[in-house]
Amino acid sequence: MTEFNQFYPCVVPLIGSRYEGKSNFMPAAWQTGLSKAPMTYCVSIAPKRYTHSLIKSSGVFSVNFIDFKYLKLLVRLGSASGRDVDKIKDSGIELKQSVKLDVPVFKYSYAAYECSVQETIKAGDHDLFIGSIIYIHETDEIRNGSGTIDYHVVKPILYLGKDTYAAMDPSSVITIKRDR
Amino acid sequence: MTEFNQFYPCVVPLIGSRYEGKSNFMPAAWQTGLSKAPMTYCVSIAPKRYTHSLIKSSGVFSVNFIDFKYLKLLVRLGSASGRDVDKIKDSGIELKQSVKLDVPVFKYSYAAYECSVQETIKAGDHDLFIGSIIYIHETDEIRNGSGTIDYHVVKPILYLGKDTYAAMDPSSVITIKRDR
Repeated sequence: MTEFNQFYPCVVPLIGSRYEGKSNFMPAAWQTGLSKAPMTYCVSIAPKRYTHSLIKSSGVFSVNFIDFKYLKLLVRLGSASGRDVDKIKDSGIELKQSVKLDVPVFKYSYAAYECSVQETIKAGDHDLFIGSIIYIHETDEIRNGSGTIDYHVVKPILYLGKDTYAAMDPSSVITIKRDR
Repeated sequence: MTEFNQFYPCVVPLIGSRYEGKSNFMPAAWQTGLSKAPMTYCVSIAPKRYTHSLIKSSGVFSVNFIDFKYLKLLVRLGSASGRDVDKIKDSGIELKQSVKLDVPVFKYSYAAYECSVQETIKAGDHDLFIGSIIYIHETDEIRNGSGTIDYHVVKPILYLGKDTYAAMDPSSVITIKRDR
């Protein structure tokens, strides 16, 4: 067998968790949407992670999509464990008020989800948290009327595996309607 | 609520399926790795899809990662249903021999998985197929020794939602090791 990173690039949001007043963020790349109606999302997290224990206890999490300009913050949040340090205080992360669930939301995310855990599935060395999306934070500025995010405004962090990141090329964006 | 595409960009592989001699490919963007040991991968597919019925019957599928130069092929494969046409014949898709499972593998994919369905989870309007990776197809040319894929050689198709696609910017690739 070989490396396991053929399914990259993908975005790498910050997963926010909170239980009994302790809050944490960790970057997680193994994530995707699952269903549109109802809106459902999933993220795969190793049981050893502090985030895993907070989500198991609270039953809720946030998903914070952040711009490439926050790459160093993301790397820092992936370096330390919330068990050892208060990463939010340590990194000077500013939060904004969550709307429906008691989860930390990164103030400068370009979009964020508030999710309620619907099911937890054991999948090899990780657990998959399947979350119902209860609320979506988003600013009007990231949309341009086409239905997609305006990638001239937002520059997502793409993960490639092996601590390696990239940006997309906004000049390459192309829409090709399917016949159906 | 708003659009549900904040978790893009991500790659959009062709999911290959075969049952009783009928083979099919469909593009699917709602997919991710789940576990490294054992290697586990998942893809979310609507029950109405022909691919869904083939995978349900066979218990196996392939995942074919394709280069941006095959974008038009991908769009075509997303337009018709394999119930109505033989998409492989219709699009002149060349296959290569699968190694461990009876699944169609696109000859010109830069990497491909052969997966055995381990579990099927209902998730809203889709079903999530969790697959054990039984075999990985890959050519040496796509690696450069860094551990990641060489994105100067391979140009993945990124999906943005709403029939919109993009490429990544290979000049933006950056490695930042975590402290740990």
